[in-house]
Amino acid sequence: MNKNSSNIMALAPNTSNKRETVCIFGTGDFGRALGHKLIQSGYPVVFGSRGTQTSSLIPKEAEVLSHAEAAQKAAIIIIAIQRQHYNFLIPLAEILRGKVLVDISNNLKINQYPESNAEYLAQLVPGAKVVKAFNTVSAWALQSGTLDASRQVFVCGDDMEAKQMVMDIVRALGLTPLDQGSLLAAQEIENYPLQLFPMWKFPILLSLGLIAFFFFYCLIRDVIYPYVYENKDYSFFIAISITNRICPILALILLALVYLPGVLAAIIQLYRGTKYRRFPDWLDKWMLCRKQLGLVALAFASLHVLYTLVIPIRSFVRWRISSQTVSQALNNKTEPLDTTNAWLSDSYLALGILGFFLFVLLGITSLPSVSNNVNWREFRFVQSKLGYLTLVLCTAHTMVYGGKWFLSPSSYRWYLPNAYMLSLIIPCTVLVIKFVLVFPCLDKPLTRIRQGWERNPQYSE
Amino acid sequence: MNKNSSNIMALAPNTSNKRETVCIFGTGDFGRALGHKLIQSGYPVVFGSRGTQTSSLIPKEAEVLSHAEAAQKAAIIIIAIQRQHYNFLIPLAEILRGKVLVDISNNLKINQYPESNAEYLAQLVPGAKVVKAFNTVSAWALQSGTLDASRQVFVCGDDMEAKQMVMDIVRALGLTPLDQGSLLAAQEIENYPLQLFPMWKFPILLSLGLIAFFFFYCLIRDVIYPYVYENKDYSFFIAISITNRICPILALILLALVYLPGVLAAIIQLYRGTKYRRFPDWLDKWMLCRKQLGLVALAFASLHVLYTLVIPIRSFVRWRISSQTVSQALNNKTEPLDTTNAWLSDSYLALGILGFFLFVLLGITSLPSVSNNVNWREFRFVQSKLGYLTLVLCTAHTMVYGGKWFLSPSSYRWYLPNAYMLSLIIPCTVLVIKFVLVFPCLDKPLTRIRQGWERNPQYSE
Amino acid sequence: MNKNSSNIMALAPNTSNKRETVCIFGTGDFGRALGHKLIQSGYPVVFGSRGTQTSSLIPKEAEVLSHAEAAQKAAIIIIAIQRQHYNFLIPLAEILRGKVLVDISNNLKINQYPESNAEYLAQLVPGAKVVKAFNTVSAWALQSGTLDASRQVFVCGDDMEAKQMVMDIVRALGLTPLDQGSLLAAQEIENYPLQLFPMWKFPILLSLGLIAFFFFYCLIRDVIYPYVYENKDYSFFIAISITNRICPILALILLALVYLPGVLAAIIQLYRGTKYRRFPDWLDKWMLCRKQLGLVALAFASLHVLYTLVIPIRSFVRWRISSQTVSQALNNKTEPLDTTNAWLSDSYLALGILGFFLFVLLGITSLPSVSNNVNWREFRFVQSKLGYLTLVLCTAHTMVYGGKWFLSPSSYRWYLPNAYMLSLIIPCTVLVIKFVLVFPCLDKPLTRIRQGWERNPQYSE
Repeated sequence: MNKNSSNIMALAPNTSNKRETVCIFGTGDFGRALGHKLIQSGYPVVFGSRGTQTSSLIPKEAEVLSHAEAAQKAAIIIIAIQRQHYNFLIPLAEILRGKVLVDISNNLKINQYPESNAEYLAQLVPGAKVVKAFNTVSAWALQSGTLDASRQVFVCGDDMEAKQMVMDIVRALGLTPLDQGSLLAAQEIENYPLQLFPMWKFPILLSLGLIAFFFFYCLIRDVIYPYVYENKDYSFFIAISITNRICPILALILLALVYLPGVLAAIIQLYRGTKYRRFPDWLDKWMLCRKQLGLVALAFASLHVLYTLVIPIRSFVRWRISSQTVSQALNNKTEPLDTTNAWLSDSYLALGILGFFLFVLLGITSLPSVSNNVNWREFRFVQSKLGYLTLVLCTAHTMVYGGKWFLSPSSYRWYLPNAYMLSLIIPCTVLVIKFVLVFPCLDKPLTRIRQGWERNPQYSE
Repeated sequence: MNKNSSNIMALAPNTSNKRETVCIFGTGDFGRALGHKLIQSGYPVVFGSRGTQTSSLIPKEAEVLSHAEAAQKAAIIIIAIQRQHYNFLIPLAEILRGKVLVDISNNLKINQYPESNAEYLAQLVPGAKVVKAFNTVSAWALQSGTLDASRQVFVCGDDMEAKQMVMDIVRALGLTPLDQGSLLAAQEIENYPLQLFPMWKFPILLSLGLIAFFFFYCLIRDVIYPYVYENKDYSFFIAISITNRICPILALILLALVYLPGVLAAIIQLYRGTKYRRFPDWLDKWMLCRKQLGLVALAFASLHVLYTLVIPIRSFVRWRISSQTVSQALNNKTEPLDTTNAWLSDSYLALGILGFFLFVLLGITSLPSVSNNVNWREFRFVQSKLGYLTLVLCTAHTMVYGGKWFLSPSSYRWYLPNAYMLSLIIPCTVLVIKFVLVFPCLDKPLTRIRQGWERNPQYSE
Repeated sequence: MNKNSSNIMALAPNTSNKRETVCIFGTGDFGRALGHKLIQSGYPVVFGSRGTQTSSLIPKEAEVLSHAEAAQKAAIIIIAIQRQHYNFLIPLAEILRGKVLVDISNNLKINQYPESNAEYLAQLVPGAKVVKAFNTVSAWALQSGTLDASRQVFVCGDDMEAKQMVMDIVRALGLTPLDQGSLLAAQEIENYPLQLFPMWKFPILLSLGLIAFFFFYCLIRDVIYPYVYENKDYSFFIAISITNRICPILALILLALVYLPGVLAAIIQLYRGTKYRRFPDWLDKWMLCRKQLGLVALAFASLHVLYTLVIPIRSFVRWRISSQTVSQALNNKTEPLDTTNAWLSDSYLALGILGFFLFVLLGITSLPSVSNNVNWREFRFVQSKLGYLTLVLCTAHTMVYGGKWFLSPSSYRWYLPNAYMLSLIIPCTVLVIKFVLVFPCLDKPLTRIRQGWERNPQYSE
């Protein structure tokens, strides 16, 4: 993707328009990688090192000096050293006065230290202007030029001018600087590269839990029950039949959970008569991961579609249909077409297809580059109107699918209802509440509250 | 998606590097939301209000003063007040001289007033520098930090420096400013958040019309005709069979309509002998919504694929196949393999699969983030070469599918041809014209015209 | 997509805040288009031309002067002239001293001249500040405002200030400037619009070669063999059966080739004991096109899925199943359910579905806008962990699918094994090596090497 930028990047130093010397403290892996890249982009580089012997790994074009000497040669000093060695900078405080120190360090754990490395550095060398940058870039990516993951470099710092200088360097290296504000943001910037899909944790844990529950539920009903009562081995149901029962159930439940916090929030706002009091913490968190919940639901819906479409290729299904036909032929009877059945079967398939289609549309509009190109009104229209339509279609799909067995006693094995019945509880609840909220007597005050109106406004002096 | 930025955003004021005070006129919903966010990002905020009583909703860190006092405290004043109350600023004109006034207002309808709110503001307070900004951001999104829809803030204004100052604030709030030029752009910026997919209106209305037409057409042929003549109830065909006839027809027609304006434009250019005269208005508009037409066509093609793949699961189809097999068995005959039929059936399926596959590829390259990463030549290659190949494959798919019934009189019910025959008219027209245009005797002059050559150049003094 | 920006762009000149005059040398197609756009964006434009007669095509608002006169009116001169005519600038050298010359030219072939056009221009007019820009934008796109392909304008130049001035103009036209460094980058910028998917060439050529090989391989085994020995005409297998054999084979081989260079690199690093020596060139190139290899593999996997899902609709398959059933019925026997077979059939389908699902996930995360929103650790997790899981699942899918025929002599026709057996060679090799590399005795030193440790560090003076 980013072939253009990485390919086109200037490959040799720019001699006529001299760039300012950059000093790098530390000749470790990242320091060297950054040095290489800086030289490639036309910056004179000087390394500050304990010993001044040159490793063969340090780019030839760079000078290697003692820390003090190197620092005097440049206005910007990149500290490519681990936090625990920052102490050595204290004696250099006088030389570093007024210099721009770029903290590029990362920790091993989230919130490892009480203060961020950059703030710690600023305390140690109070005269310098500390800027946090580059910690989200990997040394390997810098060296190889394959910055596939992300070209974004978060930059923060208290001194505007120093920040600007660092952002210019970032840009010259072909990366995209993102100003994150004052040095107080350093803690979050340092935590960022350590995160592993933090917003996805809850949706994924929730679905794992639900998968486990429904797996055993279906195992009991569909494998153990026939084994006990009919002595039939349906263990191969695990591969497809049971999975294809779990996937749609999870998709439906998770989709409903996307819309549940919205109706809960509406109820809370109506009850309180204001929108200015914070929601309970769990509701806030829930609302922030709705997008992830929805995408996980879409993943299960897609699996359900694939599992459903392979049904006619399964050797079990072929055997079953063929043996039914053979027994019909042997018994010399022809079944007439059951129109009601044809209606039901076609309806639930059509509802499912339309629901899935809208669901995929929702997923596409949540792609960053697409959602950046719609305005607020359009985004709301898609996510709210189309979203509810999807929920209605998917709920109807499930109901029509299972409608005929709903009241039949034979579908209760060991008093356990069919699994899809359980999956209908949350969606139906959400839809009923939403339906009630649409009535003008509730919708009107809610709209006013959301526009800033308050039932009991409180003014203080 | 934007988790990073929203999470990482500085959470506390930046004390060391003082930011300039921002004044907000108006303590309404949006004013307060913006005030909160500004304070979070380290800006001292002062509210200008009619009364100076502090509402509990106004952030504690902000001062509340009279309008005149507040205005004197800041160089930037955000006008968070509705247009109809702008008059109150006239007496303050002297104090506001030289200040940057940020107009954040929105209207309720597109082009509600003859001039944009920002231009109206500039007329009322001629001494101030008016900048339009923030109107595309919702108060709720600012408060909750879930700027999912878009972080883009359109900014326009006549004074470069004032615009720069506002864009710095936008950036400090974690949003992305987009410079839209002079204040003349304000009208469009104010209309922007009121739009609801303006480019999609024509393609969607067109397809609704076509759906309606082909629905009744197929209803007559496939449900009413057998009911009248054979007294058979095929009403359940509505759910899948008829839908799956309409979807491919619409996909093919809309796809052809994507390429029709291109060949029309070529004919016009050839006829006129120049590319410098404007196309008729309808052609211009048509060309601008080709992408949307194509994506709607892709949507119908996807639905067609889904509807086709569920065919073997439909209970009607299972019944039909099974009863055919049973009657074969009862009549004690085995049908030999019809190789021609196998060829035809496999060919139209293969053509359809390849056509759909290329169609999806076209859709993927039209994603903003993908098309940003290809150059002009690559984009043309994909959209033109691959696009025509898709059209050829899909047309061939339709022809091979229905070829055998083309001349059979039994496929004309009440003299109505099969619906798919109608769908072939436009694609075949486009392909024939395109084929003619490829001949060198037409292609050469066309290429020269498109490179700026003119048959009858006119020079004036 | 870019409707917003193109629609909202200021439509009329900005009178109050005068912009600086821009001079355009050359009244050709691109010069005029750029002139139009500049005037729309509020820039006064003056054309420099040999003759001063005004063509009707030149915007009315622009002045047309001789080159020397026009050059004196502006600080920025856009050279909209072909390289071979650059000589005429030599006499103007004195007038052009200190001016910003914008080279917008393109060549017809990659690396057509020894030096880039912009560098050539800089040599001819040594006193001017040459900036390369606009060459990636098409005249047609500028005129029509449909900048679908890309709004990115690569800018390079030796003079920072001159570059900044040009980038401001780019921005004012609603385009996105991308600073590419010094004028040395001009060659690459000039080559960029001539490229046609350079990174895709190797993957696509490779797959074409593999397709040809496997097509004839399968043709011999599946069409010619039965024709020779059984005199059966299976030529219609070409349309779907053989294609659906080639697609999964290519998907699996290409997917394995994505991971092969990684394990090769690990072996080389372990052998050398350092990560600081460059890999052989072929390995470097291979590693850089892994993403493209993976996406081509995904395309084949998607085709395989579509081809597989239409199986039950194929008339040949319907005939085969029906005739099997009829013969069963005529022979008056009912086959019992073969549980082992049901297990195998369901397992390979389930493995395939899961593998394809993960593969699609990998594809989605490689979309530019998605990969920009994950950090390095997350990207590695998805591309490495999930990628290997996909490879394992797809290999297992193929093994379970064909397991039963593996040792059966009847599956060897003319001593040729089934094609899918050949496809397993590379994936199994990769997985075995990877499995060995995971052992701590190899994994530990490898990790240390990748963190910068060296077995034989060499220090020079």
